[in-house]
Amino acid sequence: METVRTVADLRAAVKGWRQEGHSIGLVPTMGALHPGHMALVKASLEATTRTIATIFVNPKQFGPAEDLDSYPRHEAADSELLAAAGVDLLFAPSVPEMYGDDFATGVHIDGLGDIFEGSARPGFFDGVATVVAKLLCQAAADSAFFGEKDYQQLLVIRRMAQDLNIPTAIEGVPTVREADGLAMSSRNAYLTAAERATAPMLFKVIADIATRLAAGGGAADLSQEGLGRLIDAGFTCVDYLAVVDGETLAPATRGRPARVLVAARLGQARLIDNVAA
Amino acid sequence: METVRTVADLRAAVKGWRQEGHSIGLVPTMGALHPGHMALVKASLEATTRTIATIFVNPKQFGPAEDLDSYPRHEAADSELLAAAGVDLLFAPSVPEMYGDDFATGVHIDGLGDIFEGSARPGFFDGVATVVAKLLCQAAADSAFFGEKDYQQLLVIRRMAQDLNIPTAIEGVPTVREADGLAMSSRNAYLTAAERATAPMLFKVIADIATRLAAGGGAADLSQEGLGRLIDAGFTCVDYLAVVDGETLAPATRGRPARVLVAARLGQARLIDNVAA
Repeated sequence: METVRTVADLRAAVKGWRQEGHSIGLVPTMGALHPGHMALVKASLEATTRTIATIFVNPKQFGPAEDLDSYPRHEAADSELLAAAGVDLLFAPSVPEMYGDDFATGVHIDGLGDIFEGSARPGFFDGVATVVAKLLCQAAADSAFFGEKDYQQLLVIRRMAQDLNIPTAIEGVPTVREADGLAMSSRNAYLTAAERATAPMLFKVIADIATRLAAGGGAADLSQEGLGRLIDAGFTCVDYLAVVDGETLAPATRGRPARVLVAARLGQARLIDNVAA
Repeated sequence: METVRTVADLRAAVKGWRQEGHSIGLVPTMGALHPGHMALVKASLEATTRTIATIFVNPKQFGPAEDLDSYPRHEAADSELLAAAGVDLLFAPSVPEMYGDDFATGVHIDGLGDIFEGSARPGFFDGVATVVAKLLCQAAADSAFFGEKDYQQLLVIRRMAQDLNIPTAIEGVPTVREADGLAMSSRNAYLTAAERATAPMLFKVIADIATRLAAGGGAADLSQEGLGRLIDAGFTCVDYLAVVDGETLAPATRGRPARVLVAARLGQARLIDNVAA
């Protein structure tokens, strides 16, 4: 696996592959890879004949009080994982390569980008949409793979790519979980041992809600009860716990695919998760 | 010349040309074509082997009090002009083809998009940047051609394409003027006969400023004097008259390319112009 750090080198590799008739998959990551990322890689390897992984800790998607500086970075270990999995190219640009001094462009998604994570983390989705628009235009892949773990992010990215007519298909990949149900996340590393023991309750609560919705339960009552269970379990704050439409994130309506979304704080960590309902 | 109205048909044409090894130029317009537009077409025909012109009156770049409904539209005449000039393909999409019901994405350029026209016409450059990002991603041309008449717009588009890594070169084409100096514009049609007689003063004033700057005159004094001349000539309001850096639009500094920018109202019309200095 080759590693390139400039857009020019990335494009040269892609151009060569195109001339050879390859299909190309893109797996954008911020590194600190875990089995959730590797499921994205696997999906790309199965769907295309050449896979590019990217590692870029995107400063534009971190708020001023967030963990940009402390976000886990270990490119050497990540690189070994990607190479062993069969990734063809790692694109790991510097911040100046992505954002020159004159950089001034922002991409915003109205509505979908303003609610839930968008309201809890102002500027987050603008940062995500902007960097993903760049990566998609840089790589010109056939498909790009994103985890359903960040479900709203997946919808925001799909909306952005469709709206701007970026000709890359946005593919969602199911969340990978620990044996006890906790969704894999690079930020799980922030959990203390005690918090780690509590954390699986997040999935358990939303999975229960999904089950009881299917049995005819009401979304408002189930959400309210679930919120109480999370607080009782030791979560200090629930940013949101909601049953929403699986495409628009508007309040769910019977007969359409729904999603249970949750974000809650546990000590210094903020965890998010979601399940289909 | 073929006319297509869907992104799918546009892409099919482009794909065929790429397979034949053609280079592709894009000339985005809002129609109501005049010799200024045809200069863009000519530049594209000279630089590439296939030229696409687009006609789309983009609602997103009109403010609520602006002239979206009355903007001149005569596609049949425009189409004849383009065909006669040697354009290969006309892309003339409908509003729903460009902006579906769920459309939610906006592109904003900080700084460059907020001053001069950006402050006089809130949302204008967001609308321009968004539609041009779409057109560039739809057509995947090698080069796209824009008039220097809308100088700030040219810089905003160039910044956007560079920032989002859209791999289309943004080419500026010099302003085409009437014999008396008035910059050609589809909106000149709004001028009464008396206003049309006054309008060339706009160019005369900024051309004089450029000449006197070169002779050592001071930007502030010259701008102030020029403003007085425009009001004396019958312009009712000068939105701005400024000597700026030719790349950043910050106040001009000696030794770097500068630009004289002006926007002024004349009756119901609002005219803009600029010259190098």
